[in-house]
Amino acid sequence: MPIITLTTDFGEKDHFAGAVKGAVYSELPDVRIVDISHSVSPFHITEAAYIIQNAYRSFPKETIHVIGIDSELNPENKHIAVYLDGHYFICANNGIISLLASEIKPEKIVEINIHDRVETNFPVLDVFVKVACHIARGGSLDVIGKTITDIKEIRGLRPVVNSENNQIVGNVIYIDNYGNVISNITKPLFEEVGKGRDFTVRARTAEFKEIFSHYSEAINFEVPPNKREEDGKNLALWNSSNYLELAIYKSNPNTVGSAATLFGLAYWDTISVNFK
Amino acid sequence: MPIITLTTDFGEKDHFAGAVKGAVYSELPDVRIVDISHSVSPFHITEAAYIIQNAYRSFPKETIHVIGIDSELNPENKHIAVYLDGHYFICANNGIISLLASEIKPEKIVEINIHDRVETNFPVLDVFVKVACHIARGGSLDVIGKTITDIKEIRGLRPVVNSENNQIVGNVIYIDNYGNVISNITKPLFEEVGKGRDFTVRARTAEFKEIFSHYSEAINFEVPPNKREEDGKNLALWNSSNYLELAIYKSNPNTVGSAATLFGLAYWDTISVNFK
Amino acid sequence: MPIITLTTDFGEKDHFAGAVKGAVYSELPDVRIVDISHSVSPFHITEAAYIIQNAYRSFPKETIHVIGIDSELNPENKHIAVYLDGHYFICANNGIISLLASEIKPEKIVEINIHDRVETNFPVLDVFVKVACHIARGGSLDVIGKTITDIKEIRGLRPVVNSENNQIVGNVIYIDNYGNVISNITKPLFEEVGKGRDFTVRARTAEFKEIFSHYSEAINFEVPPNKREEDGKNLALWNSSNYLELAIYKSNPNTVGSAATLFGLAYWDTISVNFK
Repeated sequence: MPIITLTTDFGEKDHFAGAVKGAVYSELPDVRIVDISHSVSPFHITEAAYIIQNAYRSFPKETIHVIGIDSELNPENKHIAVYLDGHYFICANNGIISLLASEIKPEKIVEINIHDRVETNFPVLDVFVKVACHIARGGSLDVIGKTITDIKEIRGLRPVVNSENNQIVGNVIYIDNYGNVISNITKPLFEEVGKGRDFTVRARTAEFKEIFSHYSEAINFEVPPNKREEDGKNLALWNSSNYLELAIYKSNPNTVGSAATLFGLAYWDTISVNFK
Repeated sequence: MPIITLTTDFGEKDHFAGAVKGAVYSELPDVRIVDISHSVSPFHITEAAYIIQNAYRSFPKETIHVIGIDSELNPENKHIAVYLDGHYFICANNGIISLLASEIKPEKIVEINIHDRVETNFPVLDVFVKVACHIARGGSLDVIGKTITDIKEIRGLRPVVNSENNQIVGNVIYIDNYGNVISNITKPLFEEVGKGRDFTVRARTAEFKEIFSHYSEAINFEVPPNKREEDGKNLALWNSSNYLELAIYKSNPNTVGSAATLFGLAYWDTISVNFK
Repeated sequence: MPIITLTTDFGEKDHFAGAVKGAVYSELPDVRIVDISHSVSPFHITEAAYIIQNAYRSFPKETIHVIGIDSELNPENKHIAVYLDGHYFICANNGIISLLASEIKPEKIVEINIHDRVETNFPVLDVFVKVACHIARGGSLDVIGKTITDIKEIRGLRPVVNSENNQIVGNVIYIDNYGNVISNITKPLFEEVGKGRDFTVRARTAEFKEIFSHYSEAINFEVPPNKREEDGKNLALWNSSNYLELAIYKSNPNTVGSAATLFGLAYWDTISVNFK
């Protein structure tokens, strides 16, 4: 059974996501629809890019990913379908898959051109669903669009390495449900630049000389629990997506606070790594 | 495979929605359950009415829609099952489907009477699931209830047209995930009353002389991006459900603000259209 | 088709839940995944315990419940799989199923030991999914773990009965979507201790001499609606899970207020019952 995933900024309340699912089942009864997220911040392309990049890989090859963020068709915002790493992505050409495409070259990109047959201001429902069902039925991308070679990039999404090759300057690209702060600095880039040298991670007033692989590595379990520094312990680690993350051990944004509030970090703030 | 949709005010956190799904699968292994929304504001019948009206149409005919809002059985709140426009709706007789029923006459309405066999304070789980599974198995409405002819209406849900036929006075009936403000004034009513005359839309201090069909129509794409009036641009448009909506172009309630906050509009505030 | 449910603190926005679903479908195409909740407060074991206890019962026997709360493996937090009441539960040994296990004795508990083959800081994705799919394919618990006899308990989760047997002192263990306050005092315990005697329920300044079985029982429907005490009416009742709940009739935390705010009650506050 083909799988169609949904990643949108529709929110959890409105009828949009429900209507889209109904439309898919109306076209194609034997399909599996999987919600990845409907809680992307409105029009937040970087958030959507981060979410889809880290979710898609777990799905079987040939999964079809519909991304409904800032998808109204206009002269500067065309619709595309992309085949990349064995997965299909249907979205606006607004930079959403530039995170993906910067790592893995798309095998095929088409600009969707079925719009002369569709008049709509709900393009996910009226255009993306049609394209997704077409692909799910085994249809080719050439039937629903014309091949293009380039996609729009999100400017500044990649960290910058200085010319001396001893500093990486990145940005906060995501703050997760636990309030942990995720930068665009990846472990492969860190290792390539650092080559095993000592380093300091800096973000505002916070400094780290170590980057862990698990949250629990920051805790010394040989110290008895009542004497242990645990709650509110802050740390840097490579998260499960291999991005540099600043975290609070067992943080809860509503109670003990989160890395984002404690370090005073917001979207796009600077995080740097300096090598010795 | 039959489809059962869920629209409730259970929220995303509690066990209620999960328990309902479990109960459906326990009765009927081969069914598809689709969440429309569990984030309707508690006991907010108008919100639920708006959401289900705009979601149900996309689903295949014979879909069964369970609506769990204010559904406790009491002398003034009976349970009903309605067949309308080829779809089944199971809910309390509290006005929820009066938006639907004002446009399309129900083919059949029954007051559910299986309660002598069920003692419960979780009626969605114990009553609605049983009714939904009965219908999904091809059962008739007559088996689970007695036919009635009228359903309760939400008072004041329809806009008022003055006797001179040059003014429509409506209300805000929904505020969506983007903070856009949706009135109960529909395009067909507007066209019937307006007959092509010039008009002014008014809501508090905001005024509009034009109603767009797409958000992007409000933007002049021939002006270079850096000189373009775009962020925070406000507009009136017919939304994808054909309701008059006041919107901010690419609004995000958490950052640039929303139509609701900018215009100072809340649920049930007045929106009027005056024709020349 | 086997059913796998998910109860986590991943939130609605991040990629975690989507990634987990993708991983399940990659291992096992013919399975049904049901979201119970992804909105458990971060690391809140009691909340998760309450939610899973009240949701699991509705599902068919042999359902597999994955619980992703505080699941990072460390010397004090092992992974377990439990067979109890005909259901499978996969979680960390952190007390989450002690609410369940205090009522129904587990038939089998194993400590998962497949970790030498898995290096991860996303154990729900990399360990729990593997275990769930193994069980869904009919595999035995002995293959993925070694039998243990005890599980960790949440301390203080059960209410205390005094030695005179005329008082139960419990705590707030959950606040639901309607802001209603749920204690750990169950109807069976109340009946066992009270033996039909008169009683007073106390929580801060609130007092109740009656515990209803339905919300509507608190309302006198023979009084005309405009003279009726209804909005904001507060009451004690046995909720649909048979826990003592303090509620406001038709409460909405965002408008008329909730029991939690009105009574000034928060998680773990005391609720007592004194018998005459």
